Amino acid sequence: MWMAELAEQSGLSVPTIKYYLREGLLPPGEAVGATRSRYDESHVRRLRLIRSLTDVAGLRLETVRQVLEDVDGATSWQRAVGSAHTRLTPPLEVEPTAEATAIVAEFLRRQRWPFPQGNPLPGALARAIDGIQCLGVEITGDLLDAYGDAMRGVAREEIRSLNTEDPQHAALQAVIGTLLLEPILATVRRMAQEQIVMATDRSRLS
Amino acid sequence: MWMAELAEQSGLSVPTIKYYLREGLLPPGEAVGATRSRYDESHVRRLRLIRSLTDVAGLRLETVRQVLEDVDGATSWQRAVGSAHTRLTPPLEVEPTAEATAIVAEFLRRQRWPFPQGNPLPGALARAIDGIQCLGVEITGDLLDAYGDAMRGVAREEIRSLNTEDPQHAALQAVIGTLLLEPILATVRRMAQEQIVMATDRSRLS
Repeated sequence: MWMAELAEQSGLSVPTIKYYLREGLLPPGEAVGATRSRYDESHVRRLRLIRSLTDVAGLRLETVRQVLEDVDGATSWQRAVGSAHTRLTPPLEVEPTAEATAIVAEFLRRQRWPFPQGNPLPGALARAIDGIQCLGVEITGDLLDAYGDAMRGVAREEIRSLNTEDPQHAALQAVIGTLLLEPILATVRRMAQEQIVMATDRSRLS
Repeated sequence: MWMAELAEQSGLSVPTIKYYLREGLLPPGEAVGATRSRYDESHVRRLRLIRSLTDVAGLRLETVRQVLEDVDGATSWQRAVGSAHTRLTPPLEVEPTAEATAIVAEFLRRQRWPFPQGNPLPGALARAIDGIQCLGVEITGDLLDAYGDAMRGVAREEIRSLNTEDPQHAALQAVIGTLLLEPILATVRRMAQEQIVMATDRSRLS
């Protein structure tokens, strides 16, 4: 297909697509003559992915580029997931409090989840806990354990659904799964909350 | 405390605080003379809450205002949760496909989660599913059920931790819980994914 059709199929404007080409986010098409190029389905898919990562996952274009580079160079889906997490967990600007750090350490011990030194997730979790506790809401070990137990099952089901034979394709799926399933899980969580709200509202009225 | 100390304690600038006062997001302090006002701890907490809702939950200021109005006027935490969800689920710009709508309807039937006509969550979930399926990743009923089962337990634990005696305070906690616990849950999910990645990486190497 030509550029005009690529724009139509992807829902993006021609200047935006040309920008992604210049920035190397989108691989070039097949050159036909000096000024025209042909594109195919893989370009449409790539553009949709870029758009989802910016619009749904809310990533900045520079982060999208890094994530896509990791996927393109991934030798296994394990590496792709790990690097996507690292890209998405910005370095801490403020150190977490000792209290939150201890809460996270105890939680990880109870869950038997070892994390190597330098992994950014435990620090990120401690900072998120600080952010809520300063609003006067206490984060209990029971709540964290409920999260840990629930997410253990969720992650297992998510990873089971990966096609792990083709590492390149699995890497892409793993990154999509890590980033783009989050809004689906968040919506299901709100649904579950509303169901409990409705149930307690009914019991209050009866 | 005076305005300068309020700024220091909340970490916000004086012009920002004055803007929130003008916009009615922050209740006025106690007037002392013609031009000065005294503020207290409740103002510090309110400013921290506004800041978390914009920075952590990523809400626009107009949405923050609506959510806070709902909390201030809430007669029960059930109403506060319901209205926060509605405020946060924008009306659909594009209708979901019939396929995604059917996937959601079957999921809700399996979970025995009835939703009244007009509730925005089922449509939002269907749109999120469309957004992923167009990238070539299939959303299976098994995955949705894993999400539903996990979130049922999570929501129960979250709501158990609410202090439901004072409706005003419970409403505030419910909204904080709905919006601000999401990043904590998302981080725990990434931790669970990495644990599985590390476990399968080890078994591959051994």
